[in-house]
Amino acid sequence: MVKILIINPNSSADMTKVIEKNARDFAQDDFLVDCVPNPTAPDFIVTYDDISKTAPGMREILLEKQEDYDAFVIACHGDPNLDMLKEISQKPVVGIAEASMKIASMLGHKFSILLTGDRGVPAKENLVHRYGMERFLESIIIADCKGEGWKNQEGMIQAAEKALEETMAEVIVLGCAGMGHVTEAMQERLGVPVLDGVTCALIVAYGLAKKKIPLSKKRQYRNDNR
Amino acid sequence: MVKILIINPNSSADMTKVIEKNARDFAQDDFLVDCVPNPTAPDFIVTYDDISKTAPGMREILLEKQEDYDAFVIACHGDPNLDMLKEISQKPVVGIAEASMKIASMLGHKFSILLTGDRGVPAKENLVHRYGMERFLESIIIADCKGEGWKNQEGMIQAAEKALEETMAEVIVLGCAGMGHVTEAMQERLGVPVLDGVTCALIVAYGLAKKKIPLSKKRQYRNDNR
Amino acid sequence: MVKILIINPNSSADMTKVIEKNARDFAQDDFLVDCVPNPTAPDFIVTYDDISKTAPGMREILLEKQEDYDAFVIACHGDPNLDMLKEISQKPVVGIAEASMKIASMLGHKFSILLTGDRGVPAKENLVHRYGMERFLESIIIADCKGEGWKNQEGMIQAAEKALEETMAEVIVLGCAGMGHVTEAMQERLGVPVLDGVTCALIVAYGLAKKKIPLSKKRQYRNDNR
Amino acid sequence: MVKILIINPNSSADMTKVIEKNARDFAQDDFLVDCVPNPTAPDFIVTYDDISKTAPGMREILLEKQEDYDAFVIACHGDPNLDMLKEISQKPVVGIAEASMKIASMLGHKFSILLTGDRGVPAKENLVHRYGMERFLESIIIADCKGEGWKNQEGMIQAAEKALEETMAEVIVLGCAGMGHVTEAMQERLGVPVLDGVTCALIVAYGLAKKKIPLSKKRQYRNDNR
Amino acid sequence: MVKILIINPNSSADMTKVIEKNARDFAQDDFLVDCVPNPTAPDFIVTYDDISKTAPGMREILLEKQEDYDAFVIACHGDPNLDMLKEISQKPVVGIAEASMKIASMLGHKFSILLTGDRGVPAKENLVHRYGMERFLESIIIADCKGEGWKNQEGMIQAAEKALEETMAEVIVLGCAGMGHVTEAMQERLGVPVLDGVTCALIVAYGLAKKKIPLSKKRQYRNDNR
Amino acid sequence: MVKILIINPNSSADMTKVIEKNARDFAQDDFLVDCVPNPTAPDFIVTYDDISKTAPGMREILLEKQEDYDAFVIACHGDPNLDMLKEISQKPVVGIAEASMKIASMLGHKFSILLTGDRGVPAKENLVHRYGMERFLESIIIADCKGEGWKNQEGMIQAAEKALEETMAEVIVLGCAGMGHVTEAMQERLGVPVLDGVTCALIVAYGLAKKKIPLSKKRQYRNDNR
Repeated sequence: MVKILIINPNSSADMTKVIEKNARDFAQDDFLVDCVPNPTAPDFIVTYDDISKTAPGMREILLEKQEDYDAFVIACHGDPNLDMLKEISQKPVVGIAEASMKIASMLGHKFSILLTGDRGVPAKENLVHRYGMERFLESIIIADCKGEGWKNQEGMIQAAEKALEETMAEVIVLGCAGMGHVTEAMQERLGVPVLDGVTCALIVAYGLAKKKIPLSKKRQYRNDNR
Repeated sequence: MVKILIINPNSSADMTKVIEKNARDFAQDDFLVDCVPNPTAPDFIVTYDDISKTAPGMREILLEKQEDYDAFVIACHGDPNLDMLKEISQKPVVGIAEASMKIASMLGHKFSILLTGDRGVPAKENLVHRYGMERFLESIIIADCKGEGWKNQEGMIQAAEKALEETMAEVIVLGCAGMGHVTEAMQERLGVPVLDGVTCALIVAYGLAKKKIPLSKKRQYRNDNR
Repeated sequence: MVKILIINPNSSADMTKVIEKNARDFAQDDFLVDCVPNPTAPDFIVTYDDISKTAPGMREILLEKQEDYDAFVIACHGDPNLDMLKEISQKPVVGIAEASMKIASMLGHKFSILLTGDRGVPAKENLVHRYGMERFLESIIIADCKGEGWKNQEGMIQAAEKALEETMAEVIVLGCAGMGHVTEAMQERLGVPVLDGVTCALIVAYGLAKKKIPLSKKRQYRNDNR
Repeated sequence: MVKILIINPNSSADMTKVIEKNARDFAQDDFLVDCVPNPTAPDFIVTYDDISKTAPGMREILLEKQEDYDAFVIACHGDPNLDMLKEISQKPVVGIAEASMKIASMLGHKFSILLTGDRGVPAKENLVHRYGMERFLESIIIADCKGEGWKNQEGMIQAAEKALEETMAEVIVLGCAGMGHVTEAMQERLGVPVLDGVTCALIVAYGLAKKKIPLSKKRQYRNDNR
Repeated sequence: MVKILIINPNSSADMTKVIEKNARDFAQDDFLVDCVPNPTAPDFIVTYDDISKTAPGMREILLEKQEDYDAFVIACHGDPNLDMLKEISQKPVVGIAEASMKIASMLGHKFSILLTGDRGVPAKENLVHRYGMERFLESIIIADCKGEGWKNQEGMIQAAEKALEETMAEVIVLGCAGMGHVTEAMQERLGVPVLDGVTCALIVAYGLAKKKIPLSKKRQYRNDNR
Repeated sequence: MVKILIINPNSSADMTKVIEKNARDFAQDDFLVDCVPNPTAPDFIVTYDDISKTAPGMREILLEKQEDYDAFVIACHGDPNLDMLKEISQKPVVGIAEASMKIASMLGHKFSILLTGDRGVPAKENLVHRYGMERFLESIIIADCKGEGWKNQEGMIQAAEKALEETMAEVIVLGCAGMGHVTEAMQERLGVPVLDGVTCALIVAYGLAKKKIPLSKKRQYRNDNR
């Protein structure tokens, strides 16, 4: 049976549990899935500095667990250190931002990405550009979550609702791995697809592992270090 | 259990069987999958005229089978009539070109698409552009198949091998639904990911159906006709 | 004398008459022009499904009339089935969207396209992208036509006027073949170029026919079916 | 009757005559057309310095002749001073590069532009980019004309033929106003559309003048100087 | 010691003095810098016609002074005749728009360009496009300067402040050579980088001259005329 | 007097010395410049893993030295951790890739980047894309350096020479910080500008420090961690 490890780049036990629960709900009996935190990292990833601080722990987790799992998912919507992990890994590695944006682009004309603060907008726009998804991005929604961040379900739903009314957005992409718990409620309220990145990455990772499609080791992700 | 119908836009019983066999090999016990041909269409899709001739049959199949399946896959790498089927369908519809290109872009720097003739190059390039994948396309490979088309396994493998040696391609995308049978052999010979579009579309379609992620009916695919 | 046939992709006799009258007013003694409806199609083209339903009739009209005319114009601003008709035709075929956008881009910095509802926005944006005209599109204007659609002249003029005041638009492109009747009045009121797609396509089609410039049959529009 | 003035930006009487003859052959009885040289300019336009030296004479010609003609064509495939002339003119002004590239993009997948030396490649690529035509440019062909430039018909035809065989080009755009004389012979030999810029600009200019479609004077071409 | 000549494309003695003073304040003892007006040009550059009228004087200044200076700066934020001067010059020539936009893109996610009227917006957008800076442009700010133009310091600061609050702008680029005097006050008030184009161009020109990095004379700027 | 610190992301004392010597030759008496290696990093940076391993040392150097210098330069042509350092720094930080590509684009139509192996091509192309420089990149040149890498001067010069002959390249950008020693010899042999990234970054860093132009701390590089 396919086994997937979700690497939570931050050290939050709380968020790790939420992610793992949602992932297992999705996995059902198709595959085994675990989620581990990154103990040496900050407990929330916002800045470029945070991202660089997550690298050593993420590298270590991947190298240690590489034999035990068939694929890996990076559970932070900034896809931190994704290229590095693809390079050192012999198994598929999927980022939740790349998977969610690319699936979103198959479901409707344009998507909007939901954030809980404007600090992450530049990095998110650069990521959209990196993946060639500029044409499919309608807007980045900044939800007013009254200091509760990804735990404020109502704040997030209302911000997304407003975006659907006032812009050409047709699909919502949740811009943080911790937002997965709101997916069903938001999708029901809004009547449009709401994409949790972790689920999207699991969809792709499971497919790659099952069909034994590897990462290309031809050049970009060739592991010259080991 | 999730049920997926693969609609083969052409009328070839031969190709339908090959596609169905490969699809079931991939599905294993996760989901049920059937493949049906389009009896009123040409037996191979090359031209714009062919595409428009496949529309009535594809529409009819989808409308008739909509209650019986949880998701649909269009098994022609031109993604013929994909927008139309997404519009009339209440269930997810996935094109094999969109799925394979987007998954390819997650596996390496650039992909090349394998064709068996140059006639399809302009339409393929327009499709790549439509999906925002220009940056990830290294080249379109024209295999010399000595008139045997997608059945000439060796011709296709050698053409892909040459492209890997002479260009920056890191991933191969098979540019025809009928090429699925060559995937494993080519991947083994070349040592890079070789993507069969039908498998890629099944990966996405199965995930969408399982998680109950719908197409957006907000605007582009709103079904105003029914 | 050059003879041009305007194919109205829909079945509306009403709109066909309006288009033909405007076309003949423009043609004067330079060329003969007729407009025919597509009896087997819906009477207005909105959805992707509508577009695919117009294909058989459009193909039939073109094949039947090919010997009698020197060029063809597709009179729907979605350019439905344009690639297919270019492929099967031995004579020039011009779409009113491609002609009007490309001429608009020669007259001022940016143009806005006028629609009477937001349903068509995604398809229109994809068409703009297909033609490389993204840089020249300022906005898509949604006129509030109180249910009268393209017949509500005042609603369309006011919407365009507002766009000129509030955006950087410098040219107006009418987004529906049936809007041609408003061209002169709108241009006079607004003081900027207002482009009727049918006229723009006739300009190009007449020039191509007169100079005997064919469509390229080298690859994209090679007619392999006949 | 519509009257069009072709402004030849250079001072070559020779080239002016060739252009005028071709233009009148095309005009037939539809419109009157004259071509004037620019006596204060160099006799061939290659460099940026040449372009700036053509400006005073072109301005003067346009201002003097503005009342006598209904539209103007700039007969140099670098579209020199085109924005300036559009700005000072009350009548339509059409560049032969913009018209020929935009019409070329309606006739086939990709076009190649024929030059007689590599000096003009950077400026030509910048022009293609300015007009949003990058996607439709296959290549720039450098014909070896053995020092005879645009007068060496056979050198130009052979270079274009080679491009059609070795690249994905489907349409040829002649990259110099003086090449118009080769159009028919080249089109006949190559079997694909060969576009002379002057003819393309006349097609558009005649249509604009006949339909009384003005340049937009809203902002970019507002004449604040007079 | 490196000597740089700033060519003010317009004839305003007033603006020339302001530019020269700011330039010398920046130069300190590193290099000598002079600024000369263009006596045969209009006293302010707004239109395409203005630009073409500045060419003869700019050419003459450059050719006369070429031996006496090590680099040249064009002090108008439309970079008028920049390609032409690069072509005829044997020494580096730097435009203030190209230098300021490219430096701005190194300092923050997106910049906004400050203008004092909307007339210049189309030309500015085309310049941004010419330099590949579209991705880094947040907006063009139109300051309401109550008829005083670039002399109204408070009007410019307030407009930039508003843009920082309401948009994603992170850097301000002053869109006119005459605005240099406001740089320090605006930067202090707004707390973000405020770029004066003349300073940016001097930074680059001084570096090129000091390191003896020439313009490329390979093709685009090859001086075939002399 | 302005003081600039060049951070060499790798641990090579050898390369650090070469870089420092070239930098001081350029600085002359204008500014003080030091170069420090990154002792905890690999001695050459090739892979994504290398880049992530350079982060802790680069962070530490910058934080320790921040009070002592006025600007920082990152001396590796992959611009490793550049966004992170800009974020944590109160002083300007300039990457040698961003500076060299942007200056290259001011000197000629298109530049080519010189590498000594194909492994770095994907990361380099992504960097070019990140900076909006795609239009100005002619090619990436892979020099055959017979295992001597950036120390093989003749191998690099011959590869660049070939690129100038066979492509449209007009400017050479050295793709590694260690190649600076070859600049003068290559420029003299080839007759086109040859850009050493360290020099280019010093040009910009010195200008920013001298004029006291800060990084924007508005959003992307806001230091929320400290």
